Amino acid sequence: MFNITAEDGGARTGILSTAHGELRTPFFMPVATKATVKTLTPDDLKSCDVQVLISNSLHLFLRPGLEVLEAHGGLHRFMRFNGAIFTDSGGFQMIRKGFFVGADRDGITFRSPYDGKKYKFTPEFSKEVQMRIGSDVAMMLDYCAEYPASYDEAKKSVYFTTLWAERFPKNTEQLSFGIVQGSVYEDLREKSAKDLANMDFDGYGIGGLSIGEPKEVMHRMVEIVTGILPEDKPRYLMGVGSPLDIIESVMRGVDIFDSVFPTRNGRHGTAITSRGMLNLRKAEFKNDESPLDEDCSCYTCENFTRSYLHHLIREKEILGMHLLSLHNVCFMIEFMKRIRKEIEQGNLEKFKKEMEKIY
Amino acid sequence: MFNITAEDGGARTGILSTAHGELRTPFFMPVATKATVKTLTPDDLKSCDVQVLISNSLHLFLRPGLEVLEAHGGLHRFMRFNGAIFTDSGGFQMIRKGFFVGADRDGITFRSPYDGKKYKFTPEFSKEVQMRIGSDVAMMLDYCAEYPASYDEAKKSVYFTTLWAERFPKNTEQLSFGIVQGSVYEDLREKSAKDLANMDFDGYGIGGLSIGEPKEVMHRMVEIVTGILPEDKPRYLMGVGSPLDIIESVMRGVDIFDSVFPTRNGRHGTAITSRGMLNLRKAEFKNDESPLDEDCSCYTCENFTRSYLHHLIREKEILGMHLLSLHNVCFMIEFMKRIRKEIEQGNLEKFKKEMEKIY
Repeated sequence: MFNITAEDGGARTGILSTAHGELRTPFFMPVATKATVKTLTPDDLKSCDVQVLISNSLHLFLRPGLEVLEAHGGLHRFMRFNGAIFTDSGGFQMIRKGFFVGADRDGITFRSPYDGKKYKFTPEFSKEVQMRIGSDVAMMLDYCAEYPASYDEAKKSVYFTTLWAERFPKNTEQLSFGIVQGSVYEDLREKSAKDLANMDFDGYGIGGLSIGEPKEVMHRMVEIVTGILPEDKPRYLMGVGSPLDIIESVMRGVDIFDSVFPTRNGRHGTAITSRGMLNLRKAEFKNDESPLDEDCSCYTCENFTRSYLHHLIREKEILGMHLLSLHNVCFMIEFMKRIRKEIEQGNLEKFKKEMEKIY
Repeated sequence: MFNITAEDGGARTGILSTAHGELRTPFFMPVATKATVKTLTPDDLKSCDVQVLISNSLHLFLRPGLEVLEAHGGLHRFMRFNGAIFTDSGGFQMIRKGFFVGADRDGITFRSPYDGKKYKFTPEFSKEVQMRIGSDVAMMLDYCAEYPASYDEAKKSVYFTTLWAERFPKNTEQLSFGIVQGSVYEDLREKSAKDLANMDFDGYGIGGLSIGEPKEVMHRMVEIVTGILPEDKPRYLMGVGSPLDIIESVMRGVDIFDSVFPTRNGRHGTAITSRGMLNLRKAEFKNDESPLDEDCSCYTCENFTRSYLHHLIREKEILGMHLLSLHNVCFMIEFMKRIRKEIEQGNLEKFKKEMEKIY
């Protein structure tokens, strides 16, 4: 169930109902590929008001394996997260090293990087895996083309994705999201969106973007796709992203995002703040006794100075990665709250202009 | 101020008063060499009831530097720890790679591994550094011999340590602890302990042990030294250790311990539990849904299964290192509480026999 609660140009706020809570859109999901948002405890996530995250069903299938997850009563209990959980299907791992063997009309064959064993993921099997994992939202098995992709390869990605979309089980208690492909070709994105629009998905992912193409191209593809997808279903731009990319996409009608942006940056010593990105390794922070972000009330900002964080990052201390990841995730959650408020007040355009000065 | 509150054979409980709290002995200090107990936040330490930790004044002098610490109002505020803090002098870094240049009657010359700059640490300068860091207890600058050390080298370590002990400032608001050296030579340990016993230190470290010598030799050296040191001053066995080594040493009159044992083991995937050491990497934990330690109420044990921890450790996830370090530190704190209770009830010998079956 998805209800739109406010609109501001192409942007909208809404509520997506899941078995683990009513989620206010637009929202951002921290990434917990292997059943952990890197460096963060469930209590850390709670302290940041994280209501939903995304994990990866292919990774979980390989490790720890379905039996382990089922014995725990599902992923929520395994990782002790009580919010909503999306799972990706593994289609994206086609373009990641170490997993992909081949694809045909029937699905994708993956190889375990752990023991070399091969597994065929059909659309039905992908859904079964995600059901057994117990996530709240399953992403369909999709065919993700690399960037750059030839027109033929992109066409194939749409063709296979549509075939698999038809077969992917829908109308289950677990929500099922379709995924639009088509690389950077306008006509293929259009076709893919049209193919899926009339299928009974609970929402739609936009896949195969944010993998190296120019920003303008990504935004253009999003625009085409959201113009075709049903308005009353949530749209999820997969793998995005940074504050500006999120605003641009929200203005084009996107409701859901996920990205390793806050956690990867955190582990590498970079903080996302209301004044811009800060690389804490820089010598300028050595004597800076101010908090990371004066407008933030997360544990990191309430307790530590930039000087201390600089020290930890310089010394490669895990605590530094942890404290920056914590702040960055909190920042993204607060940023999305702000976006929702700006939409409700009809001020998103103005907010975007402010943000363009900062990021 | 140190008051003994109970005795059981050679073991005793007591209270050491510091500027940051009354510390019940025997106690164990987690190690925060670089102003962080590796992977743990101050809130984590509080959740484990950590009342005191030890940092390293040589490391802190080099990074972040005294100016940074002073600008924060000292180490406590820098790292946001409100308990008591001991600092080691850097004498131990004589036998660690990358720091030691040379020693003479006047002190030790260290080289910064960061920029190659050399610094001469005299006894007076060591105390000054520790005062400026703002720790509650300063360890004297000592001459630490490697193991194995020739008799001559061990004799030199005692000779220099005694010289420096005389010069090390005492009777300051910050407590000053002497350090007994002498390697594994009974007569030299005896001489060192006698040399220092009549100086007005607030407590005594026993240094240069737990660096490779056989356990029996370590225990023998401790016995000799505690037999000579004044009974009304706390004794601190530096760099120890494991549960059994701690019990053995407590029975020989030691009051204070520190070791990277819980944090290093945690980062390497090993848990200290009431049933013994568990290497979480082992396949036997893949399907083990029990908590790490049924007798523990730390965050890790209250929330996660061995199966989940096994998964995190296998995947080299930082959260796994964090959760095991947290448990291990909590375990050591609880273990010391138990030792204090057993001493008060006159049951330490019996407790030791139980523990010998486990560790």
